[in-house]
Amino acid sequence: RLAVTTDLLIEGRHFLPDADPEALGHKALAVNVSDLAAMGATPIGCVLGLSVPRADHAWLERFARGFRTLADAVGCPLVGGDTTRSLQGTVISVTAMGEVPAGAALTRAAARPGDDIWITGTLGAAHMALEVLQGRERATPDVLAALRPFLDRPEPPVAFGAHLIGIAHAAIDISDGLQQDLGHVLRASGCGAEIDYASLPVHPALEGFAAASVQRAVLNGGDVYQLCFTASAAMRQRITELAGRHGVRVSRVGTITQEGGLRVTACPVPLSPDDPAGFDHFG
Amino acid sequence: RLAVTTDLLIEGRHFLPDADPEALGHKALAVNVSDLAAMGATPIGCVLGLSVPRADHAWLERFARGFRTLADAVGCPLVGGDTTRSLQGTVISVTAMGEVPAGAALTRAAARPGDDIWITGTLGAAHMALEVLQGRERATPDVLAALRPFLDRPEPPVAFGAHLIGIAHAAIDISDGLQQDLGHVLRASGCGAEIDYASLPVHPALEGFAAASVQRAVLNGGDVYQLCFTASAAMRQRITELAGRHGVRVSRVGTITQEGGLRVTACPVPLSPDDPAGFDHFG
Repeated sequence: RLAVTTDLLIEGRHFLPDADPEALGHKALAVNVSDLAAMGATPIGCVLGLSVPRADHAWLERFARGFRTLADAVGCPLVGGDTTRSLQGTVISVTAMGEVPAGAALTRAAARPGDDIWITGTLGAAHMALEVLQGRERATPDVLAALRPFLDRPEPPVAFGAHLIGIAHAAIDISDGLQQDLGHVLRASGCGAEIDYASLPVHPALEGFAAASVQRAVLNGGDVYQLCFTASAAMRQRITELAGRHGVRVSRVGTITQEGGLRVTACPVPLSPDDPAGFDHFG
Repeated sequence: RLAVTTDLLIEGRHFLPDADPEALGHKALAVNVSDLAAMGATPIGCVLGLSVPRADHAWLERFARGFRTLADAVGCPLVGGDTTRSLQGTVISVTAMGEVPAGAALTRAAARPGDDIWITGTLGAAHMALEVLQGRERATPDVLAALRPFLDRPEPPVAFGAHLIGIAHAAIDISDGLQQDLGHVLRASGCGAEIDYASLPVHPALEGFAAASVQRAVLNGGDVYQLCFTASAAMRQRITELAGRHGVRVSRVGTITQEGGLRVTACPVPLSPDDPAGFDHFG
């Protein structure tokens, strides 16, 4: 069975005119293969629609290099495309296709009470990099250099995701932030969750920032492109073994509950229902 | 085996801001399923990326209706999408997927000397409609009303195209004009062609226009989204029967030749190598 995902990236809205073209090529594909990973799909290929105001060959070559390098790395070859001239600004459309065993795709709706909640990779780095780049936070060049690859070149755990079929129940990729994306899973699955803040895989380069900033980056920072998935407690050993084989870091961060709502315990900064950075409940 | 096609449509470049949203929805999908038809692919589904400057629900609903009506008609259901807000102007990205029997897809490179050349539908109407709408040609309201559906709502012969597998050799959809698109087939196949102008299926509503305008519309007019395909002479009866079953008009218009170049015989207005409207040879 075919799994398909599509994203439309618009200059000025999703990326800046001076974005590094190689990073942009990488990220345009990464956001799509991240979605495939969350479905447990094995990539088949992708198509690229590109609209540019003028044929800047150096730019196009660097964009293509970033795109192709990730396509090669995750086995998602470019199989077609459409390039046109735009009136202004660059528009990038990527559609990625994958396959999943019939009826076996991971979905948002399959979490079950008692499931463990797992996260791949780390949280907070992409968001904090953006905060620093846009002047809302300050960091030394070393710290920014450590954070920035997570914003510019996310590395979704594609092969690991495909191997979660039969092991995980629900999965989603974290694009809008852990609270929001896990919230989608909970709503779709009709259950709730309890997360232990202390178990969350905070990126080490966030260490020097204010506690409230870190907490916001960890719970609500987007652009992560790692997986949040749920699985029965009986799968713990298989999951850690699988992660080891794929060189993927996994953290067990909480439990799916019968009762609705998302509770995050032991937050450094207490969450309140008014806190724009977070929520404890939803309708 | 999977066949995929993608198109990126930008406001101001591929359509005007005041384009009828229902026609736009239809056409955004039509240009893609036309490409599937040219591969002999049976549609599986499509995804839509849509970026709009504001949420105009009436516009979105009409766009969706045009899209969905064609999707239903050709059996290409919408299986995913991405909707975002643009800074200005509407951007539409459609990717359509189909399947073809392994190794059997129709391609541009499979024409053989001696093949008949066939065309589905008629030629010239979409181009002439655009000429009238943009004030370069004049027509009565009746004539424009007859031409305009071919510009606004092309109806690619999707099911017919899928049945050409095993019957046709090469195929292409006519999006840039017969001469140019057939030229792609000839270059890819390493052969030439002779077309008899008198056998071309000129749309009857072109009757009252000047001979040179008609000829340009027929040979070079784009936006046709019908098929040009080649097949051995032994297939003539099967092709006319197949066309009859699908309610598709087919015309046999010429022959593939060993010698390169495209010759159009009996043109009302003689073609010269300098004629920007046409060409007789290519490198």
